[in-house]
Amino acid sequence: LNSKSSHPAVGVRGCEVTRELAAFAAKAHYDGWPGRVAGESARAFLNWMGCVLGGCREPAVERAAAAAVELGGGPQATAIGRGVRTDVATAAFLNCLSSSVLAFDDTHLATVTHPTGPVAATLFACSEGERVSGEEFMNALILGIEIECRMSNVLLRPPAQSHVGFYATGLTGPIGAAIAVGRLLRLDERGLMSAVGLAATQAAGFRATHGSMAGSFVPAAAARAGLFAARLAAKGFDCSAHALEAPGGFVDVFSTDADPALALDRLGHDFEILNNAYKPYPCGIVIHPAIDACLELAHRMEQGRAVTGVRLVVHPLALHLGGRRDPATPHEAQVSLFHWAAAALARGAAGLAESRQACIDDPGVAEWKRRIDVAPDQSLQRDEAIAEAILADGARLRAHVGHARGSLDRPMTDDELDSKFRMQAAAVLPAGSTETLLRRCREAASLRDVGTEIAAAWLE
Amino acid sequence: LNSKSSHPAVGVRGCEVTRELAAFAAKAHYDGWPGRVAGESARAFLNWMGCVLGGCREPAVERAAAAAVELGGGPQATAIGRGVRTDVATAAFLNCLSSSVLAFDDTHLATVTHPTGPVAATLFACSEGERVSGEEFMNALILGIEIECRMSNVLLRPPAQSHVGFYATGLTGPIGAAIAVGRLLRLDERGLMSAVGLAATQAAGFRATHGSMAGSFVPAAAARAGLFAARLAAKGFDCSAHALEAPGGFVDVFSTDADPALALDRLGHDFEILNNAYKPYPCGIVIHPAIDACLELAHRMEQGRAVTGVRLVVHPLALHLGGRRDPATPHEAQVSLFHWAAAALARGAAGLAESRQACIDDPGVAEWKRRIDVAPDQSLQRDEAIAEAILADGARLRAHVGHARGSLDRPMTDDELDSKFRMQAAAVLPAGSTETLLRRCREAASLRDVGTEIAAAWLE
Repeated sequence: LNSKSSHPAVGVRGCEVTRELAAFAAKAHYDGWPGRVAGESARAFLNWMGCVLGGCREPAVERAAAAAVELGGGPQATAIGRGVRTDVATAAFLNCLSSSVLAFDDTHLATVTHPTGPVAATLFACSEGERVSGEEFMNALILGIEIECRMSNVLLRPPAQSHVGFYATGLTGPIGAAIAVGRLLRLDERGLMSAVGLAATQAAGFRATHGSMAGSFVPAAAARAGLFAARLAAKGFDCSAHALEAPGGFVDVFSTDADPALALDRLGHDFEILNNAYKPYPCGIVIHPAIDACLELAHRMEQGRAVTGVRLVVHPLALHLGGRRDPATPHEAQVSLFHWAAAALARGAAGLAESRQACIDDPGVAEWKRRIDVAPDQSLQRDEAIAEAILADGARLRAHVGHARGSLDRPMTDDELDSKFRMQAAAVLPAGSTETLLRRCREAASLRDVGTEIAAAWLE
Repeated sequence: LNSKSSHPAVGVRGCEVTRELAAFAAKAHYDGWPGRVAGESARAFLNWMGCVLGGCREPAVERAAAAAVELGGGPQATAIGRGVRTDVATAAFLNCLSSSVLAFDDTHLATVTHPTGPVAATLFACSEGERVSGEEFMNALILGIEIECRMSNVLLRPPAQSHVGFYATGLTGPIGAAIAVGRLLRLDERGLMSAVGLAATQAAGFRATHGSMAGSFVPAAAARAGLFAARLAAKGFDCSAHALEAPGGFVDVFSTDADPALALDRLGHDFEILNNAYKPYPCGIVIHPAIDACLELAHRMEQGRAVTGVRLVVHPLALHLGGRRDPATPHEAQVSLFHWAAAALARGAAGLAESRQACIDDPGVAEWKRRIDVAPDQSLQRDEAIAEAILADGARLRAHVGHARGSLDRPMTDDELDSKFRMQAAAVLPAGSTETLLRRCREAASLRDVGTEIAAAWLE
C-alpha cells in the first residue's frame, strides 16, 4: 500500500495534532489515495446511500423531519426519499438519521464507530447546491472517515479508554464531517483547524439513548454539528489551535491514558477505511456473530426434533451493549442480542422483517427467547460467537463462528452489497432507478457533478 | 421560603430522575414560585438582555451570524441588534452567543455554570412568533435555570466530580433550555422526558475553546440544542425514559461518584436561581476577587510611589482557569487573571474598555503584568483573594477581599444592574428605548405578550 500512496508521511512533531491533521486534510487529493482505499470508499458510499433509502420512511425520520423542516432554511438540498428540500445542515441531519435509523450501516469495529453516516450525509447535502466533482467528493469522504476513525482510535484503543457509555460516532463523527466539508469548501490549514475544534466541542452522545429514536439522533446530530462547524470556520469564526490535544481539550475530556499523537501515526500510509465493515444484519454489530451462529444452528436443526435450550457464548461487549432480554419496540430490539438470536433460530433469517414489531410480538420468537442463555467470555474476539443447542434427547449441536459475516476477515462481497442496496431501495425507488443509482454510487469518483447526477438517477 | 411555595415537594422514589424532573416541570406555574425567586428571575432576565445588547456587535457574533443565517429558516425570530430575522433555533443560537461573548453574563459559582443564556435565549426566540404571557415566560425561565443548575450540582458538587475540562454550561445548558421551551410548548410529562433526554445527548463542550471565539460558541450551541430537543419531542420523537440516570446515561458519562437523585433533593423548596450571581466585570468569574483586590490597591496606592511587585493569593481554580499570562486577543484576555489584575492596577478600572485590544496592547498594563506574581491557596474561598503590593522602600500594602463584588455574599444591587444594563445598551439603543426596555425586562412577568412588547421597546 505504502508505495502507492503519494501523501507524504507526517511525523509526530511535538503534539500539534489539530494542526497536523488540518495540514494533511488541506493537501489531500483523490489521486493520492491508494486504489484499495478508493475502491473501499465507493463501497462505503454505496452502502450509505442504500441505508438512507432503506431508512428514510421510518417513523423516527418522519417525526424528525416534521420538526427540523419547520426550523430549517433552504431549499438547498434534499431530504432523500421525503420529497422535501431544505437547508444543507437540515438535509445532512435527516439523511444521516435515515442511514442510521435501522442500525444497518457500517462499523469501525475496533472502536464501534459508524463512520460513513455523518461524513457522507454532510458531503452529499453540500454537493447539491454547487458542482462538486466525483474526485473532490470521494477525496473528502475518505479524508473524513480517515480522521474520524483515527480520533476514535486515539480515544478508545487500549491503553486509552473512554467511558463505555459514550457513543463513539457522537464523539468523532462531528470531526469527520467537519474535515470533509471543510475540504470541500477549500478551507486553508487555519480554517480546517477551527472547523475541527468547533466540531470537537459539539461532540458527545451516550448509549442510554439506544433502544429509542434518540439512538439514531446522535449520528444525525454529529453530521449537522460538523457541517455547522465548517461553515462557521469558513466565515472566520475561530477556535483555539489545540482543541484536540490541549489540556481541557477533546482527547483530555473524553478519554484517559490516551496519546493524541496516535492520530498522526502512519497518517497517509495506513488507512482506517480498510478497517470499516458493512452490516449484513440491521442491528448492533456486536450481535452479529451470535446471529451467524444461530442461523447456522437453525439450518442444521432437523424439523420436529425438540430443543430444550440454546447456550450462546459471546464477547462481553455483546452482552454489555446488547443485553436487553425483552425488547418492546423495534428500537429496543436493535440492541437486543436475545431478540436477534431468537429470531434467527425461529425463522432462519435476520433481515428487515426480523427488525419489525410483528417479529418482536411473534410467539414463536418469544418461545425461542425463553430457551436462550448467554455467557460472556473474554477469550472470544469481538466478531466471534459460539451457539450450542441442547436437544431433548441429550444430544448437542454446536456452531462456532470464528468471524462474523461482514467482519473484516469475512467482508461483504460486492455482490452482497449490491443485493443489500437493491433490497433497501425497493421500498422507495422503481427498479430502473435503483440500478442507475447503484451504478452511479459505485462509480461516484468518475462523476462530473455528484449532486446533479445522483439526483437525476432518482428521476429515471 | 418553604411556606411561600405552592409546588409540592418531590420525594426520591427510586431514581426516576428524568421522569420526576419532567413531572415537576409539567406542573410548575408562575404563582407557585416564592416572591424572592420571581424577583431574582427578573434580575436574571434583565442582566441577560443587557449582555445580549452589549455583545451583539462583536466580531464573533458577526461571523457566526453570516454562517448561521445562510442555513437558517424563518423569519420567525430576531437576531437582536443585528436587524435580521431568522428561525427560532438560529435566533436562540445568535442571541445566546451575544450574551456570552464578552463573558459578562451570570454564574452559578458552585458549578461555574452560566445558567441564564441558553434558557433565556431559547425562550425569547420562541416568544416572538406567538403570544406568550409574562407569567408563562418567567415560569419557564425559572424552571429552566432551576433544573439546569440542579443537574450541574449533580455532576459537580463534591463528592461528585466531572472532568475539569468540561464546560458546565455546555453540559447542562441544553437541558435547561429544553425544559423551558418544552414547558412553553405545553409538553406533557412524557414529552418533557424526551426533550430532556434529547438535550442531554447533545451535551458537552470543553474549556480548551476558551481564549477563542469558540468559548462563547458552547453556550450558544447549548441554546440551540435544547430548543431542537424540545421541538423534536413535540413531534413525538422519543428518547429513553432514563436518559439522565441510566447506566450509560448523562450523569454516568459526565461525572464520577454522582447521585442523580440529588437533582430532586428539596425540589420546589430550595431554589438554585438564588445561588446565581451577575458579573460586574467582563471576564471569567474566578478572576473577579483578584480584580477587586487590585482595584482596592490601585485606589490606595499613592501617585509616584514606586511599586516593585504585586503578590496575588487566589483560590486554585482561578489560576487553573485563568492562568494565561500573556493573552494576545480579547478572547484570550477574558480568561487571563494576569491581564485583569494588571489592567486594574494600571487603570483603576475593569470594564469593557479593559477587555479591548487597546488595553491588551497598552505598555502600561504590560509593565504591571511583569510585576505580578500569583500563588494558589486551597484555604481561600472561590470568591476570595488577597493582593499585596511591595513598595520600593520595603513597605507593603495589602488588600484582602473576603467576597468578590457580585458574589452571593455581596450581590449586585438593583441599581448596579440597571447601570450595567444602560452601559451595555448604549452602543445599540437610543437612551429612550433603553429605559423602556429596562422597565419591560424588570416587569416582564406582568407583560401580556413578551415578544411583541419587548420588541416594541426597541422601536420607541
